[in-house]
Amino acid sequence: MGWLRVHGSPSPGFHAGDRLALVVFIASTRTSTIPGISVAGPSPEATLYTPALDVEYLVAGRPITFNVIPVTPEGIPTPALISRAALKLLNIPTLIVDVGSFLEPKIPHTRMPSRSVGGSIDSEDALAEGVSKKLFEESRLLASTLSKGLDFIVGESMPGGTTTALSIMEALGYKARFRVSSASPSNPHDLKVRVVERAFKRSNINPPERDVFKTIDRVGDPLHISIAGFLSGALEGGSKILLAGGTQMCAVLAILKSLGVELGGRVMVGTTGWLVNDSQSDMRGLLNDIAPEVPLLAAEMDFSDSPFEGLKYYDKGYVKEGVGSGGLLTVLAVKGWSKGDVKRAVYGEYGRVMGYEAR
Amino acid sequence: MGWLRVHGSPSPGFHAGDRLALVVFIASTRTSTIPGISVAGPSPEATLYTPALDVEYLVAGRPITFNVIPVTPEGIPTPALISRAALKLLNIPTLIVDVGSFLEPKIPHTRMPSRSVGGSIDSEDALAEGVSKKLFEESRLLASTLSKGLDFIVGESMPGGTTTALSIMEALGYKARFRVSSASPSNPHDLKVRVVERAFKRSNINPPERDVFKTIDRVGDPLHISIAGFLSGALEGGSKILLAGGTQMCAVLAILKSLGVELGGRVMVGTTGWLVNDSQSDMRGLLNDIAPEVPLLAAEMDFSDSPFEGLKYYDKGYVKEGVGSGGLLTVLAVKGWSKGDVKRAVYGEYGRVMGYEAR
Repeated sequence: MGWLRVHGSPSPGFHAGDRLALVVFIASTRTSTIPGISVAGPSPEATLYTPALDVEYLVAGRPITFNVIPVTPEGIPTPALISRAALKLLNIPTLIVDVGSFLEPKIPHTRMPSRSVGGSIDSEDALAEGVSKKLFEESRLLASTLSKGLDFIVGESMPGGTTTALSIMEALGYKARFRVSSASPSNPHDLKVRVVERAFKRSNINPPERDVFKTIDRVGDPLHISIAGFLSGALEGGSKILLAGGTQMCAVLAILKSLGVELGGRVMVGTTGWLVNDSQSDMRGLLNDIAPEVPLLAAEMDFSDSPFEGLKYYDKGYVKEGVGSGGLLTVLAVKGWSKGDVKRAVYGEYGRVMGYEAR
Repeated sequence: MGWLRVHGSPSPGFHAGDRLALVVFIASTRTSTIPGISVAGPSPEATLYTPALDVEYLVAGRPITFNVIPVTPEGIPTPALISRAALKLLNIPTLIVDVGSFLEPKIPHTRMPSRSVGGSIDSEDALAEGVSKKLFEESRLLASTLSKGLDFIVGESMPGGTTTALSIMEALGYKARFRVSSASPSNPHDLKVRVVERAFKRSNINPPERDVFKTIDRVGDPLHISIAGFLSGALEGGSKILLAGGTQMCAVLAILKSLGVELGGRVMVGTTGWLVNDSQSDMRGLLNDIAPEVPLLAAEMDFSDSPFEGLKYYDKGYVKEGVGSGGLLTVLAVKGWSKGDVKRAVYGEYGRVMGYEAR
């Protein structure tokens, strides 16, 4: 466990169970197409394709809709690469849940009846009135049909997500400005704040808002409310949940707190050291403000000895997290995998994807 | 276990595992709209709605698209009622997989990218060329992402399914005429045979066909090939599978045999005594011809003391099986539930659905 940092007291035995399943939620918010907001795609418009391509690659081993692995404008590959390598080692059931992906992924996936692509919150409502409540209830139902005897690692892929997470947390009364993370080493905090301010003004949101669903319909997105619904159902079903992600997961917890959902010592957050140690965001502070009882695990991965330049950028503050990668790494660490073995798996996967073997 | 009949030698410990999950495949074939073929709906056209309504009710406790429980023309309720009562006792994860339902169910469900409603085989191809191969591979992929550490009970809902099952088994070289089951006490064997003969003539099928996928595209349906693909992937992933259904599951096994898939002692069939003891069909003989190594379990349920007339019809040869009900009952029997306790659960559920309490 030498590469795991633990903040808070994890519930005993959480990871030891062999009944873990990975659930990856995907959605799009057109907020990601505002130039400068997201680097989770080679261009602002291309960020709309990233969620489907991420999970196609994660499940089938290659993107299907287009034959390209999602990359940043600099060509740095999606964290789904880490997720897939980790998943191979963990060997656990995986479920993809589409709550509003711009592209329908060409793999078997769970489809939410009320799935919707989120609007660009600076200029339009995120969701039609009432949709966030439906997404919450449908996700809660999904969890209640799955939770019998299973515990969950919950990841996500939605470019633009830290901006809508900022919007959700601020709208619900938490101070989140300049604290959310970014896949870019130059976090565009000023732009995110301007987008959120425009969203609040446009839709007459005055923090702290008490009506969670109205707030999400106006200035949120389809993803965070769905994950919150899933957690609600999974907790009712007796499951434990590891939220596998960064500051976006704080928005999920903010929703649950506003709804009065009792977390009952069965929720943790797992992410990467890249994210927790990032000087441009404040994961620990946000989590402490919103849900101080929730332990935070961080996997201190590094790719300093990577044979591939693309991965070395992770050490320089690019990408940091996504598609459940950080949480999956923390589970591997808890289960006793060495950092070296996990690195080798990631390098091997990268080599396979790029069409040549890691040296 | 007094209400369980076992034919063959079940693999030891199959049901004892607490890692079971239920997977219900749904699809439509327009073959069900041929008057007289199917009673799995109040009218021939309404049979197209039955799969979605069945799983909406199974998962959410009530049908959502229309507020009606699927019934036969006589008003006898869907076997999903038994499945839901059984599922509550078993308390296991459940997944709905839509491979071509006429209606998209308004609950969270797994969606197969190549999902297609099947054509009416007497007058049109079942599937566009190549679709059955895609459905097989997509279902295999789904199983491979789920099978890690899970075993499966696999059920289905597709009206018209015994007719396309007959078509598949005959096309692949098995003698299945006058041997498939029916939800009606007056099995319309002659009509089914005429439909299949027209289908073979129309599409130039000459048994025994060697090309499974071509055969399914022309005279099959989206359901059986998908379940076969799921089994193939689940077996590769090390899972055990209980096929929860009647003579349709023999068509699934016929597909797997034609594809040379090794069942490896990890597949069983679980159904009801109503079906196995039916004088108008030949479940045991079909299974013995196609896959004699596969054990058959039958739950000897009866509703003779039911306070509800609708259920008493089950004892008179109506419905018999469907939506995984028989297999779920066999699992309850193996796990030691008494017939009386299970009956009480079914009566309680029937009373709840009908809006009054069982006496």
